[in-house]
Amino acid sequence: MTAKFIVIEGLEGAGKSTAMAICKQFLQQHHIDFVQTREPGGTPLAEQLRNLIKQQHEERVASETELLLMYAARAQLLHNVIRPALKQGKWVLGDRHDMSSQAYQGGGRGLAPDTLNALSKIVLHGLRPDLTLYLDIPPAIGLERAKGRGELDRIELETLSFFERTRARYLQLAQQDECCVVINADQPIEKVHADILVALEQFYFRVSS
Amino acid sequence: MTAKFIVIEGLEGAGKSTAMAICKQFLQQHHIDFVQTREPGGTPLAEQLRNLIKQQHEERVASETELLLMYAARAQLLHNVIRPALKQGKWVLGDRHDMSSQAYQGGGRGLAPDTLNALSKIVLHGLRPDLTLYLDIPPAIGLERAKGRGELDRIELETLSFFERTRARYLQLAQQDECCVVINADQPIEKVHADILVALEQFYFRVSS
Ligand SMILES: Nc1ncnc2c1ncn2[C@@H]1O[C@H](COP(=O)(O)OP(=O)(O)O)[C@@H](O)[C@H]1O
Ligand SMILES: Nc1ncnc2c1ncn2[C@@H]1O[C@H](COP(=O)(O)OP(=O)(O)O)[C@@H](O)[C@H]1O
Ligand SMILES: [Mg+2]
Ligand SMILES: [Mg+2]
Repeated sequence: MTAKFIVIEGLEGAGKSTAMAICKQFLQQHHIDFVQTREPGGTPLAEQLRNLIKQQHEERVASETELLLMYAARAQLLHNVIRPALKQGKWVLGDRHDMSSQAYQGGGRGLAPDTLNALSKIVLHGLRPDLTLYLDIPPAIGLERAKGRGELDRIELETLSFFERTRARYLQLAQQDECCVVINADQPIEKVHADILVALEQFYFRVSS
Repeated sequence: MTAKFIVIEGLEGAGKSTAMAICKQFLQQHHIDFVQTREPGGTPLAEQLRNLIKQQHEERVASETELLLMYAARAQLLHNVIRPALKQGKWVLGDRHDMSSQAYQGGGRGLAPDTLNALSKIVLHGLRPDLTLYLDIPPAIGLERAKGRGELDRIELETLSFFERTRARYLQLAQQDECCVVINADQPIEKVHADILVALEQFYFRVSS
């Protein structure tokens, strides 16, 4: 079985970090060698870009600047972590990936689909996750959960309508992507976990048989 | 007369900073209101990206990462400085612009022309300098001059063949661009200055008549 690329997606507070822990445990139980990533970030330079993206700036950050920084971080992570890992037969478990840019910068910021597609093509060279778990949550509920973690960053401080547009794009992309499973994240944590495990087991059964 | 965008291009040590001073003096003598920029950089966030680009990193910086950071800085400068200035009727005098990415990341790093063109289109939205002065210099001579300024940065430490490829792409682009004047920068400084002034005067005569 070739190494697989699994991605967790969703709005702030959807429960991605919590879902990552479940996935990690699942991979360990199946004795699968894997690396864990997060986006934006995951290499020293990409983490510096993450800080620049999340920081408040004196000047307005243009949507195109934000988009290009996201893809700069992604390019670095792909070159230095994701592709080498997959080549070595290690699975990759990612907290966010390309779908986040499509949803936030495309849906939320309203950048043109052509722009998003051109950048995806340049940076991904056709690489696509084998499984995406999209944790769907109403923005107000996710943001309420995220606030519990502390100070909100530049993007988390966006308006509710920004996140509504982001969620709508997420749902649209999830529907078009046969490798994406939508998880209802607005449920008690135990039920969300159970749904994630079912999706992982079905995926594993499919790729290992 | 609408505001114009003038750009100085060339390899390290070609004499761009020196040429900027001549252009500034020319604009002042003609009582033209202008803003001065440099790339990568020219806004607080873009200057932080400049530092990240020029720094040495523990990890390899992928060519695509470098390219996307250049365009992120350019997008920010265009949104916050260049377009607002031109809209207000101020001329813009730039130390490097898009041609540098075409030459360094396209020619030097060997990234595909399609990639460069897609990014240019996304970020520039068709904006093109009204005049580019390309200062042409054999790389070895330029690098010798640049060394006189102190420590070389990550890009300045590239091989001579990298800069030969960059120069070749510069010359090719200059030939295709009717708004670009090639200045032989491998001449005594007084002669280079005189050639720059002739180019500026011809441009000014053309656009003001
Ligand atoms: N299904 C859930 N119900 C209630 N709280 C949750 C649920 N899932 C996660 N949380 C809590 O919400 C907060 C944000 O979850 P987290 O996994 O950090 O989200 P994300 O990584 O998507 O931003 C955490 O405090 C987490 O414990
Ligand atoms: N035509 C020239 N002949 C000799 N030295 C030059 C010439 N033009 C510039 N210099 C010197 O070369 C060095 C680099 O010039 P500079 O304008 O900083 O280049 P750039 O900005 O293109 O890197 C400076 O010390 C400058 O005084
Ligand atoms: Mg998280
Ligand atoms: Mg200079």
